[in-house]
Formats: sequence, structure tokens, C-alpha cells
Amino acid sequence: MSSEIGASEGTTAEVTAIERLVAVEEIKYLKSRYFDAVDMKDWSAIIGIFTEDAQVDFGGEGKHHVGHHGVTEADVNPDDWIVIGGPATAKVIEGAVGGISSVHHGHDPQIQIHSATRATGRWKLYDRLEYGHEVMHGYGYYDEEYRCEDGVWRISQLTLNRLRVVWEDMRKTG
Amino acid sequence: MSSEIGASEGTTAEVTAIERLVAVEEIKYLKSRYFDAVDMKDWSAIIGIFTEDAQVDFGGEGKHHVGHHGVTEADVNPDDWIVIGGPATAKVIEGAVGGISSVHHGHDPQIQIHSATRATGRWKLYDRLEYGHEVMHGYGYYDEEYRCEDGVWRISQLTLNRLRVVWEDMRKTG
Amino acid sequence: MSSEIGASEGTTAEVTAIERLVAVEEIKYLKSRYFDAVDMKDWSAIIGIFTEDAQVDFGGEGKHHVGHHGVTEADVNPDDWIVIGGPATAKVIEGAVGGISSVHHGHDPQIQIHSATRATGRWKLYDRLEYGHEVMHGYGYYDEEYRCEDGVWRISQLTLNRLRVVWEDMRKTG
Repeated sequence: MSSEIGASEGTTAEVTAIERLVAVEEIKYLKSRYFDAVDMKDWSAIIGIFTEDAQVDFGGEGKHHVGHHGVTEADVNPDDWIVIGGPATAKVIEGAVGGISSVHHGHDPQIQIHSATRATGRWKLYDRLEYGHEVMHGYGYYDEEYRCEDGVWRISQLTLNRLRVVWEDMRKTG
Repeated sequence: MSSEIGASEGTTAEVTAIERLVAVEEIKYLKSRYFDAVDMKDWSAIIGIFTEDAQVDFGGEGKHHVGHHGVTEADVNPDDWIVIGGPATAKVIEGAVGGISSVHHGHDPQIQIHSATRATGRWKLYDRLEYGHEVMHGYGYYDEEYRCEDGVWRISQLTLNRLRVVWEDMRKTG
Repeated sequence: MSSEIGASEGTTAEVTAIERLVAVEEIKYLKSRYFDAVDMKDWSAIIGIFTEDAQVDFGGEGKHHVGHHGVTEADVNPDDWIVIGGPATAKVIEGAVGGISSVHHGHDPQIQIHSATRATGRWKLYDRLEYGHEVMHGYGYYDEEYRCEDGVWRISQLTLNRLRVVWEDMRKTG
């Protein structure tokens, strides 16, 4: 087995191929439930998806909203979008998309299992955020880390990066 | 292994981790062939993807079409879109998208293997249905059940739910 | 285990279920890194994703660009888009999307492992190519073959097929 699904040197003996495959599938499942929680506005479900000390960085998001749905430069402070732990993450997400129709689809995960308790991953993202007639179409990717505690994988680090963000005016397109 | 990829209590002993992983991959493959069949208009292929007694519920779809491509309230009867088995499902799908360009992409499956013969799953969906200059962009999710008969997994229950449906007028956007 | 994830007759004994599952995951990972390389413009990364003798056929692409961003019938020669090996593939891709914002998302892979060293696969694709105010939204699928050499899977054949290509004029939609 190549290193691609995660056997770092020195860890091959610790985690079997089956254990790695199970962990990869569980992490894919975890991230899918995250997307569900965001789009179905289930804030309490978000809390349990992150470790207590999870470092979550949505700091690059605010600037893409300037000039749309009433957001100005003065409103954007990246620090407001960099938080620790599940409850703070749920609060940030609720603030951003709690009142709107949102769709988040993850694509083509690259999960690497580094040990029985640590993994990293990248997910490509398409998100559609509808603020009245203004619709944000976002394209980017998450770089993440995961930790397994008591047999449960959770997100311990998350950074959202953008390749492109475009806005549609639905008054013109429908 | 946590319960996340499907070991319900009492079934752990019956299905090994490998068997579960194989089943998860086979069900992902099955659903992908379903999407192919719909978009490539291969109605006979759809039939074999469902069990003979499959309960298929597209009952929520009709209302999203009212006011577009000639569909009126009077045309929409949810019961017409709730059917049993593969042949009836193929017929409903052919009626809906047989004459148009369609694209169906599934995302972020959550497959749970409950026994050697029963599984459940959720798939997020983006679909693009092009009726002349009117294009439906659909966002939602399937909640499904699967049954394994003679070593072959098939869909035994399907309900399509919608988060958002929007219409584009291509005369304005191209 | 059914034949769906790839046990052709006569090969069952050669490749175990675990080996097949590992190979499937590695090939998914490989294709995801391909998409990353294209959209992050990492041309050298593309080279290593293909075998030296890979047959790569983007021959159907050119015609979809005629009438957009300055492309005319005279510019389109399918043979220019049918190449051998990673370096030539990287060059073709750089020529097509090197100067623009691109997004490629793969969906619903159907990977079949035919032996320890040969696999085939189909991936559905959405791509968004932004040439100034003209944006191509592409829907299609890759049919591919993979070869494992020295424990590393690479793409040995690729054909991109299209279901639908539409163009958006961003001057009208934003």
C-alpha cells in the first residue's frame, strides 16, 4: 500500500489497512453530517462534530461579502471568524447562514490517516448562499485535521480557502 | 469501530468491517449507475437498480414545476410520482426527463450497513433540468434504503427531499 | 462480494477485498489531486498523475468553445487535444486553463479493480471555466483506465465526454 491513504513512516505497524479504510469512511460520513447540519440549520449537531479545542478559521470569508446584502468594509473583521471549539463554530455559522437558504456540497475528499487518532483531509466545496435576490456561488476547499477520541472522529482544525466567489443577481436571471 | 458506518447493536457479529466497507462501496457504485441511467436515458438500466417492491417517492417534485414549461397546478398530483418497483420508477423518470437534457450529481453519501442485507443512506443532490430556455437548478437530498438479494444491492426505498429549487431563464443569462 | 467493485472472473483469487478497497480509495485520491493540480495551476503535479504512455483524449472539447472568448472553427483541431503521457497532458491543460479561473469537481466515481495493476473508472464532472465575462459551465464524464506501477496508481487512459455545455455572460447575471 502506498502512502497515499495515510501510512506515514513509523505508523504502518500501528494502523492496519482495514482500520485506515474504516477511519476514512467515518471521516467522510462526519463531514457529510457537518454539511447537513449547516444547511438544515441544526446548530446543536454542529457542536458535536468538532473537538472541544478545535481551531476553526473562516477568516477569509468576510471580504467576499463586502458590497453585498448590506455588508461594508467596516463590518468585516477576520478575527470574528476564527474561533475555538464546537459551540463557537456553531454560533459563527448560525450568524452567517442562519437566516438564509444555504447549500454546501463537498467533493473529492483526500483523507490521510496518520495514526489511530490523527488524520488530515482536504475537501473541495461548492456553496450557494441566498441573501434575498443576491446569491453567492462559492468555490474553494477546506484543509482539515481530525482527532479520534473514545472511538469517535471529530474535526480538530478547519481552514476554508477560496478559489473563486461570484455573485448572481436573481432579479436578472430568473 | 464506531456505529457511524452502520453496526447497529446486535449486528456487529454478523457483518465484519470489511464486509461493511465492501457494501458501502457497492451502494455508492449502484447510486452512481442510477445517475448515469437517468442522464443517459437508459430506462432499462434503471429497472435493475431497484428491488421489485421498491417504494419510490418523488411526490414533492411536481409543485416545483408549476408555472414553468407549461405545468399548471391542475397538472400536479403527488400520487402520480409515488410508485412501486423498478419498471414504474423508470416510467416516471422517463416522463419527467426523457425529452430534455438532465444532469444529476450525488454528493457526500452517508451509508449505514445495518445487516448483511439491509442498509440505509442519504445523498445530497444537485440536478439541472433544461426545458427549452427554462432551466431548473435543484438542491436536495435522497433518503434511501437498500436491500441485498443474491449478492446484489438494490434500492428498496427512495424519497427525494428538496432544500431549494430555482429557475433560470437562459434567454437572459447566455 | 459482487463483481461491482471489480472482481473480473479469474482475478478474484489474485486481489483480496481489502486490496481492492485500498486501490479504490487510492484512485479516488489520485483523481482528486488531478483536479487540485488543474485548478491550482500546478503543472508539474499533473505530470506525475499520468503514466508515461497515458492516452489522453480531450478531443471533444474544442468545438464547445467556438464562438466564445475569440475561438473560431479554424482554431479547433481535435488532434491538438489528443496526447500521450503526463508532460504533454500538462501542456494541453495549461494551454486551455492556465490563464483563467477554473473549477473542476468530480462526482460519483465508479472504480473497478480488474487486477493488482489494472483498474477502470468513470467520474462525472462539473467544470466552471471563466474567460473574462464568458463562463463555461460544463457537464460530462471521464472514462478512464489506471495502472499500478511500483505500488503507485496513475491514469493510463482518459477520455472526457460531454452531456451538456452552456455559456453564461457574467455582464448580465451579476
